[in-house]
Amino acid sequence: MRTGNLVNRQVVLKERPLGIPQASHFEIRTSAVPEPKEGEILVRNLYLSVDPAMRGWVNAAANYSDPVAIGEVMRSFAAGRVVASRNPRYPEGSLVMGMLGWQDYAVTDGQAIRRRVLETDLPLSLSLGVLGLNGVTAYFALNACGEPRAGQTVVVSTAAGAVGSVVGQLALHHGCRAVGIAGGEAKTRLCVEAFGFDAAVDYHSPELAQALADACPDGVDVYFDNTAGRISDTVIPLINRHARIVICGTASVASWDPWPTGPRVERHLLNKAARMQGFLVWDYEHRYEEAIAALAPLVRQRKLRFREEILDGIEAAPGSIADLYEGKNMGKRLIRLEEV
Amino acid sequence: MRTGNLVNRQVVLKERPLGIPQASHFEIRTSAVPEPKEGEILVRNLYLSVDPAMRGWVNAAANYSDPVAIGEVMRSFAAGRVVASRNPRYPEGSLVMGMLGWQDYAVTDGQAIRRRVLETDLPLSLSLGVLGLNGVTAYFALNACGEPRAGQTVVVSTAAGAVGSVVGQLALHHGCRAVGIAGGEAKTRLCVEAFGFDAAVDYHSPELAQALADACPDGVDVYFDNTAGRISDTVIPLINRHARIVICGTASVASWDPWPTGPRVERHLLNKAARMQGFLVWDYEHRYEEAIAALAPLVRQRKLRFREEILDGIEAAPGSIADLYEGKNMGKRLIRLEEV
Repeated sequence: MRTGNLVNRQVVLKERPLGIPQASHFEIRTSAVPEPKEGEILVRNLYLSVDPAMRGWVNAAANYSDPVAIGEVMRSFAAGRVVASRNPRYPEGSLVMGMLGWQDYAVTDGQAIRRRVLETDLPLSLSLGVLGLNGVTAYFALNACGEPRAGQTVVVSTAAGAVGSVVGQLALHHGCRAVGIAGGEAKTRLCVEAFGFDAAVDYHSPELAQALADACPDGVDVYFDNTAGRISDTVIPLINRHARIVICGTASVASWDPWPTGPRVERHLLNKAARMQGFLVWDYEHRYEEAIAALAPLVRQRKLRFREEILDGIEAAPGSIADLYEGKNMGKRLIRLEEV
Repeated sequence: MRTGNLVNRQVVLKERPLGIPQASHFEIRTSAVPEPKEGEILVRNLYLSVDPAMRGWVNAAANYSDPVAIGEVMRSFAAGRVVASRNPRYPEGSLVMGMLGWQDYAVTDGQAIRRRVLETDLPLSLSLGVLGLNGVTAYFALNACGEPRAGQTVVVSTAAGAVGSVVGQLALHHGCRAVGIAGGEAKTRLCVEAFGFDAAVDYHSPELAQALADACPDGVDVYFDNTAGRISDTVIPLINRHARIVICGTASVASWDPWPTGPRVERHLLNKAARMQGFLVWDYEHRYEEAIAALAPLVRQRKLRFREEILDGIEAAPGSIADLYEGKNMGKRLIRLEEV
């Protein structure tokens, strides 16, 4: 394939946000698509991922990875098709998923590729959601860190979201009681009706503490925490002896500058000999296929449900993060690019 | 042995403290020493233990064990000699350590006994300190929860204390860099000179954060936390990827009613995929002898140093807890009772 005439639209970081990234922090620029060199491939992105973690990637504060530089293409997962290949591992026509950025085309020597997508019977978009980092995160955060056991109670915050909904469903498969926390009636209903949670509570409720206590009559053994803040402060006093709290995100904390305060957790952890553990999916990169092998059959058997919210066109990307923090999305958010 | 004429002096809880127990919360009463029934033993206590955990045992707030009732003998560890036995496991003359309470004599069917003390070549008092719960706590908190690896940095709060000093020395045996935090120059000097810590910093210092950063040029891999509060707030930002924080006590927090606030830890734990874990030594009760078997030879070889601070007479007991929270003790505090 000749690539010289192709135009690459790229969403670049224009200005560093202090808190939540807004559309105005990005701009779309166009550039020529480069020819792949020996060892490289050219990927036509078909789906761009929109993830809450992106806030951390553009903020300047110390984090688990270096921030995206001003003028750099926005870091993101994307899935697409190899349209030109000088790398035998990824032949032309193969489907790949990786850190390909918010752009139409990406050239990589393969380092950016997380995996070749082999589940060609399933929609490619799933490789960014339930069969992508979201599913893999849910799988390892719950199994490796949460260590659920049958009969125990698993509480999940952002329960209607792309990760939380998988955590809850996997907890049910383990024979646990799954209790979701989500914002608003539409989402709590989604948790129970679509994802099968035993109960779901609305974090907007002024009676959250009582509602949670009622939903967890035997206390909380595993808390999958994607929010931190007030929601966690309400869950943590309910933990049982040897409870496991998995910190996967801090969505409800708008800014860590100045660093926010909250009720100290030490005494809860001590009294219950409980554990609180940060989870970074990068630590499980070498075990990625193990998770997909467990999750894909569940998807095919319709035992693992998911929701997608697809926005069309790269123009939708810059403004697509901020919404997530208002809890406006009803499923894994993706940007769909048209195949040309 | 006839016990009918023996008088038992007992320190009982008179009033429930809200914060730190003071002498005025206790009173000493006398009662007759009962005859042991079939299966029971009568122990003459020779050393009573004084532990920071006692604050938790007398406070009404939910905790890891039921609070001591008003009018009840103060719960405590003690070590003594079996002076009458109707239980073949503990023959007359044997030495025992257990939950025998702040009193001259204790009758038990053996349930209160933690172990029979077999290291008769070593002082009995050690069975309440370096070869007692303090040593066992240090051993499992560091090894099972802290998981130190050679070359890593282990930071220890209350480093000059009965537990902290053992943690630091065991960290050194693992090939770690051991950094102590203690109150005042006498204690930081003790850490370095007597216990061999690589460095020790005074938490009273207004430059604590800088001093700690200087003492931990490669960051912090294990934080053995016995204090919570401001000291922990200073250590936690220094943690490395996959750090382990072991919460063993919260000595610097005077009261949990109202529940104190502090900088949120979630983001630190997430960014570093680090873990914070409460440690209760009761979880390791079945492995007690494993710790003693590791620690006793080190004591005999003088590779594990300790300090004791012995107060004489049961009258010293009621006022002996409060001091601990002012950091006034210079070693494991014990009450010595005279053998009659």
